[in-house]
Formats: sequence, structure tokens, C-alpha cells
Amino acid sequence: MSTALLAALREATGAAQVLTDGDLSAWELDWRKRYRGRALAVVRPGSTEEVAAVVRACASHGAAVVPQGGNTGLVGGGVPDDSGTQVLLSLGRMNTVRAIDHANLTLTAEAGCVLQAVQETAAAEGLLFPLSLAAEGSCTIGGNLASNAGGTGVLRYGNARELCLGLEVVTAGGEVWHGLSGLRKDNTGYDLRDLFIGSEGTLGIITAATLKLFPQPVARMTALAACGSLDDCVALLGLAQARLGAGLTGFEVMGRFALDLVARHFPALPQPLPGVPWTVLMEQSDGESEVHARALFEALLEHALERGLITDAVVAESSAQSRALWHVRESIPLAQAEEGLNIKHDVALPVSRIPPFVAATDVQLQTAFPGARLVNFGHLGDGNLHYNVQAPPGDSAADFLRHHETAINTLVYDAVQAHGGSISAEHGIGALKVGDLEARKQPIALALMRSIKLALDPHGVLNPGRVVRPRG
Amino acid sequence: MSTALLAALREATGAAQVLTDGDLSAWELDWRKRYRGRALAVVRPGSTEEVAAVVRACASHGAAVVPQGGNTGLVGGGVPDDSGTQVLLSLGRMNTVRAIDHANLTLTAEAGCVLQAVQETAAAEGLLFPLSLAAEGSCTIGGNLASNAGGTGVLRYGNARELCLGLEVVTAGGEVWHGLSGLRKDNTGYDLRDLFIGSEGTLGIITAATLKLFPQPVARMTALAACGSLDDCVALLGLAQARLGAGLTGFEVMGRFALDLVARHFPALPQPLPGVPWTVLMEQSDGESEVHARALFEALLEHALERGLITDAVVAESSAQSRALWHVRESIPLAQAEEGLNIKHDVALPVSRIPPFVAATDVQLQTAFPGARLVNFGHLGDGNLHYNVQAPPGDSAADFLRHHETAINTLVYDAVQAHGGSISAEHGIGALKVGDLEARKQPIALALMRSIKLALDPHGVLNPGRVVRPRG
Repeated sequence: MSTALLAALREATGAAQVLTDGDLSAWELDWRKRYRGRALAVVRPGSTEEVAAVVRACASHGAAVVPQGGNTGLVGGGVPDDSGTQVLLSLGRMNTVRAIDHANLTLTAEAGCVLQAVQETAAAEGLLFPLSLAAEGSCTIGGNLASNAGGTGVLRYGNARELCLGLEVVTAGGEVWHGLSGLRKDNTGYDLRDLFIGSEGTLGIITAATLKLFPQPVARMTALAACGSLDDCVALLGLAQARLGAGLTGFEVMGRFALDLVARHFPALPQPLPGVPWTVLMEQSDGESEVHARALFEALLEHALERGLITDAVVAESSAQSRALWHVRESIPLAQAEEGLNIKHDVALPVSRIPPFVAATDVQLQTAFPGARLVNFGHLGDGNLHYNVQAPPGDSAADFLRHHETAINTLVYDAVQAHGGSISAEHGIGALKVGDLEARKQPIALALMRSIKLALDPHGVLNPGRVVRPRG
Repeated sequence: MSTALLAALREATGAAQVLTDGDLSAWELDWRKRYRGRALAVVRPGSTEEVAAVVRACASHGAAVVPQGGNTGLVGGGVPDDSGTQVLLSLGRMNTVRAIDHANLTLTAEAGCVLQAVQETAAAEGLLFPLSLAAEGSCTIGGNLASNAGGTGVLRYGNARELCLGLEVVTAGGEVWHGLSGLRKDNTGYDLRDLFIGSEGTLGIITAATLKLFPQPVARMTALAACGSLDDCVALLGLAQARLGAGLTGFEVMGRFALDLVARHFPALPQPLPGVPWTVLMEQSDGESEVHARALFEALLEHALERGLITDAVVAESSAQSRALWHVRESIPLAQAEEGLNIKHDVALPVSRIPPFVAATDVQLQTAFPGARLVNFGHLGDGNLHYNVQAPPGDSAADFLRHHETAINTLVYDAVQAHGGSISAEHGIGALKVGDLEARKQPIALALMRSIKLALDPHGVLNPGRVVRPRG
């Protein structure tokens, strides 16, 4: 059977784009090295029609297709399982920016375009594509959409879903939906676009997208502020939203231990407000001038100081200083990795519930796992915390994870649910959280998801076992 | 059978809320008076559980449920057919604002809340709910979401879909999905929310929603500008977007004939820039001050004058003047109605394609229907035109419609498709455009929609015949 399938795949894409030998770990091993699969073949189609032909070949041979972009996902959703029967479909060769429409403020890119290349193409035209995240140098726009990526600009510009106007998609039957609309309004039927976005390749394979662009801001300005409590961070957020409106483009929070880890492992990075309980990183984009932006920021921070919401603050004096402040924020995951293995969470809560969630959950964790260390940081403006847990100092991190990861996840996710939150804010479900989702999603929501999966992919061709599984 | 069903409905909601006698035209006749149906009963549940009980009763008796909010829809999607067998489910009694969360900037409202009441509730708390449209005094938030309403704030704040974070929905099986999330990020599975939004009651009945709020702007400012061509209007839009960024909250365009109709039928309304080919109405919201907003607006308009994009402009001197300018814009549909019956279109195009679309289609219409008058206006910032056609002067409007409506729709929709547009930007499909959708939507998109309808409503209980019909 697999011989006939391989022949059909070679027919679809040309033999040179069907890889079966040698080291395929670039496609078979996920970025976090938690999932090492084995593919029947890695297939690299060069066009939408070739993607459709690959899907038809797999469907007719009863094989599963696992689509992959830049292989930077964090939940094992883009690598094959270890059965050796799944076909890994890499979109990497489909990396053309097909069009830019200045008056419509849109850009149409193929799925395999690297996010940073899309940003740079827009910038070269004097425009902004605002999706931005740590993996932007290697993740692809197709993967960003398939996983509804978040990142650091969500507060102002929304998730990947909000940045997409139209899609081109290959269905489970190997047909092509030409939905590359550049329209801001279109009420002609069900929202297929938003259904494919975030479905992690389980309902269709995104081959191209029409994306929203924005005028480039004239000035960007970054500030750090020191807060005594998370309540004060939330109050500062409200003040900044009221005074800066859409000019507030980033609002990150970093707990003291998270920054202490950065100081320990990357001592060369500047930390202008050391030793404070909570540090807020704010970014502002301004359409007028740097002078205007700075005046707004300074007035905001003075007001916050007067109200006692912050104890100290600095505004970056140059774009180099701004980048340095962001670099500290982005170094937290690396500093964690240097410190040792850890248990990552990617939770979302209503902003108002973040302080009580953290207060309650910190205590529960310290009680149940004395000495465990909390690396707490995230996109406070979006209600998204990376509430990570590191082994007690001196303990073996590997042992700690082996013994306690499940119990810690249960404790954290129970608390998230009790506070009206989500166990996956921006990373998705993939293979990693399928069981958690089954255990925690409302049964009717799961049933609706299963119905949709069955309707759109009745034979389970597309990324089976990810996101939602048939009822067991 | 209907006796047993009526008994079950009375059991579900109490007999007083099951109306079968007297004048039910408030529910059976649509706002445009194009659809007059006949319901088996009008049922007015007072809670989500009662809605679910009504749906279960109808499902078990094989009856269809037609959900209705404020009955202001324009495509006949919310009134029963004339069979006398459909149950009209009015959400009007479910009109409680359940919660406001200041720190999270969210408001949770039941489906029957009138849009204006939601706006006012937010405003009373110093916050903004930005959805705004002509019917806001009687349309309901459930209907707004079921039809993914647009309106005048889409350019800055998006359609109803973008303003909703979570839903409570009664499914076709009479179960309740508790999806009232207040989360900005949630990647736990398929996007059920956006699938129900815009499905016009055919996939589920929205009973409540959690909506995004925004800080109230400090100042709002309105300006009119005169343009010699639609190309200049589009260039002005680009300039305004670059200079005002998210401060640009409205960008409407009005053709000369549209404003002439307003002058004829409402001569008391001010028209400070009479007799120009195209008039742009711009609105700006500012977080700083009226002085700041005015300075930005005046600099923008001066620059546009220098570049020759506009020939004249006025900035409203007071909020009363602002309202008067908006009143002119909002009076265009009423002036059309005074002038006589007309053929309405609600089309969307990429902004860049609007000038060539209008140039080509105007000529085609004038050639095919000499003397026909084009009432052209709309939300240019969103690429949404209400490209309406009025009978030649002196002709019987009724005769003109009877003889030419189908041919004119065909001509206009062919042109829309040729320019990459949509035949329904914000009004939806309902009963009116089901045939057009079948004729014009890509077959695979229709097939996907039918699969989803069948998966979520296998027995055709919810608003059958609207949006998408089973394959004939």
C-alpha cells in the first residue's frame, strides 16, 4: 500500500520533493523536542494544486496528512506520530508573497512565507504587519493562522485570526476553497475562514492568506514601570488604555523571579528597575511624532506615580534602548531553559481575575509543592500569563517533572477554570493537550467540535488525533 | 400535532408567553414589509432554559424555530414563512445586562437587549460599546450578532463579530453551550463563537454574549470634505489612515445624487458643501482633547487640499453640528424611500477596486436601463457601498422594480464578482439572497456550509431555508 502511495505522492509533487531517506528530524522532531515522530514520507509541494493532489493521494490510500509550517509549535501539533504511516506535508516551498494592495491595506502571502519575511515585505512598502512573536524568524504565516498565534501585539491588533481577511484552503477531499478575499465585510454565509483558523490543520490545509496591513507608526516608545502588586499592574493597564487608547500596543508583566533568572543567566542585559515585585513593559505606537509619544508616556507615568500605582519608571531614550528592554522580556524563556527543565503553562483569564488567580494559585502550589518556583510573566493586556513552574532549588528538575507535572497541571488548570479562564491562550491543543481538553471542555462544546470535524473530514485524513479525537 | 406542540410550548414558557391569536404582525411582517409570514405561535421565553425547552419541544414535534430579535433585518431572515407551521421565537424578554467588568473591559448582555440600551449602559459606566447602526433604537444584540452587523464604526472597531468575546447558545438539540468567555485569547479548539455569529439563527440560537468595551474617547470630531472623484476619496482615506491611525473611526462617502435626494425631501437639513460630485464624512475619536483632535483634523485637511485630493472641507464646530452632519448621512435611505421604491444593494469590495467598479457599473446600468438613477453611498473605509438603483424620473417605481429588479441585480452582482467583491457586506443572506448565494458562491464553499448545517442541525429545526438550503 505504501509503495503505491509513495508513487502517487511522487506523481503529485515530483520525486525530488518526496523525502523518505536520511535524517528527517528537521520535520519529525518538534521544537521543544518532546515529540519525535516517524513519517512515511516528507512531501514538499510547490503549489496549491500540488497540495491538493497530495491530499487526494493520501485520502485515496487511507493515509493521514500532517501539515507543517516552520515547525515551531509548542504542543506537538505539527509533527507526525511514530507509526511511520503519516505523510508530513511541509508548506515551506510555498513562500511567495502574491500581492500587496496599498489602498486596501492588504497583503496576500502563501502559507510557507516566514512571518518575519511578511513583516519585512510590508515594511519595505511603508506598511506594518503587526503579528510579532518570538519565533518570527522561522515560523510561517500558515502555521500562525492554523494555530491562531498571539504574540506581543494582540492588545492593539488582535490574534492572527483578527489579522486575516481571507484564506485559500485545501479541504480533506483535496478540493481548493478560493477564499482569498480582501474584504472587510462579507456576510455571505458561515464564517469558514475563522473555522479553519485555529483548527491546527485538522479541518483543512491553509495554502495562502490575505492579511491586514496598517500604516507604519511614526514613533514607537517603550517604558518600564515598577509595581508593588498585580492589582496595581491591572490598574495601570486601565489607566494606560484610557489615556493612550489604541496607541497602547503592548503591556507585558514580569514577576521578580522571572527577571532574577534573566539577571542570573544573562547578566549583560540591562535591568534598570531591579528587585521590584512586578515590572510592566509598555509599548506605545504614535502616528504623530516621538515628541508627542514621549509627552503622553511621561504624563501617564507621572499620573500613575501620583496615584501610587507605580513606584518607579523609565522611558527608553532610543530605539536601541527599547529593543534592549524587549530583549529582557524575550529572554525569560531562555533563562528558564538555562535554569533547567520546567513546566510551562499558557493560560488566559479575564484581566480582572488575574490578581486573585495568581494569589490563590501561588499559595496552593507552595503548599502542595514546597520550594517550587514560579516564573510568572506574560501578556497582561490580553489576560495571558505564562505561569510556569520550576523545580525547587537544588532538586533534580527532571525528577521533579516526572513526579509532579501531571499534578501541577491539574492544580493550575483547576484554578484557571475556577477563575473563568482557558488552559490554552495562544499555543493551541495539538497532541499535548488533547486529553486535557477532553477532560475540561464543556461536553456540548466537544460534541459540536466532533460534529464539525466529522462533517469536514469524515475519513480522518487531516492531522488525526490532534485538537479533537472521535468519541472513544 | 400542533395541539400537542402548543401544549409543550405553554409548558416551556408559561401559557401567557405563547401567542397564537390576534394581530401578530409585529413578529410576522418584516421591517421592509417584503415578507409577511404566518407563525404557528409566537413564543417569548424569559430565560435561556426556556429557550432550550422551546427548541426541544419543536424538535420533538418536527417543527421549525425562527429566532427573532428586534425584527429590523433587511433580508427576511427573522420572520416565519407563510406555512403557519413555524414557531417564531422572540428573544425580546431576555433583555438583562448580566454583568460589566471594568478591568476586563467587557459587558455581558442577554440577546434581547436593545443595542442602544447596551451602548447607554456602557456609557453610564464611562465606557464605549462602539457598534452603531441606524436601527440601534430597536435592533437587539442577539440579532446584531446572528447577522454579524456592521454599521458606522467598523473601520476602527470591526463588525459585530470582532466585538464579541463569548456566547451562550442554545443548540439545535436544545442544549446550552455556556461559552460566555471574557477572554481575549483562547485557543482551545474550533472557533464555535465565530461560526454561530453571522449564521442568522440557522446553527444555534444566541441567548447571551460577552462584548468588548473601550474607554470613552475624550473628544469626537466630524468633518466633511468635497472630492472630485472616487479615486480622490480613496486617496483621502489612505492619507487619513496614515495620519490619524486608529483615531479615524468613520469614513463615509456620499454621491451627489444621494445628497440631492436628501436636500429635496429634507430641505431643513444642513448641506454645507452642496453640489459636489462626492462628499466624504470623516469621524475622528481622540483620547487627548478637542483641541488636539481639531488640530489633527485641520492639518490633515490642509494637506489634502494642497495635494488636490479635496476641493473644500468643513470641520464641525460643536457636537450638535457633528450630529447634524451624521443626520444627513443617515437620512439618505429615508430620502430614497420618500422618492419611491428602489433596488437596494449592500456590496463590499476591496477599497482599491471601488473606483473601477463604480465607473464600469454606472456605465453598464445607464446603457441597459437609460435614465435609471444611482443612489451611491456607503462605508468607504470598509469597502462597503450601498449601491442602490432608483427608477428613471417620472417612471412608475413599482413597474420599474417589477420588470427590472432581477436583471439589475444580475448586472450589479456580476460586476461585484468581477471585482472580487461580496453581494452581501453587512445585511446577510436571510431568505432574500439564498438563491443568489447558491448561484454565486463557489461550490466547495456551499458544500462546506451545507456539511456544517447538517452536522449542527441534522433535522433542520433552526430557521430552515435561510442562508443555506439542503442540496435540491
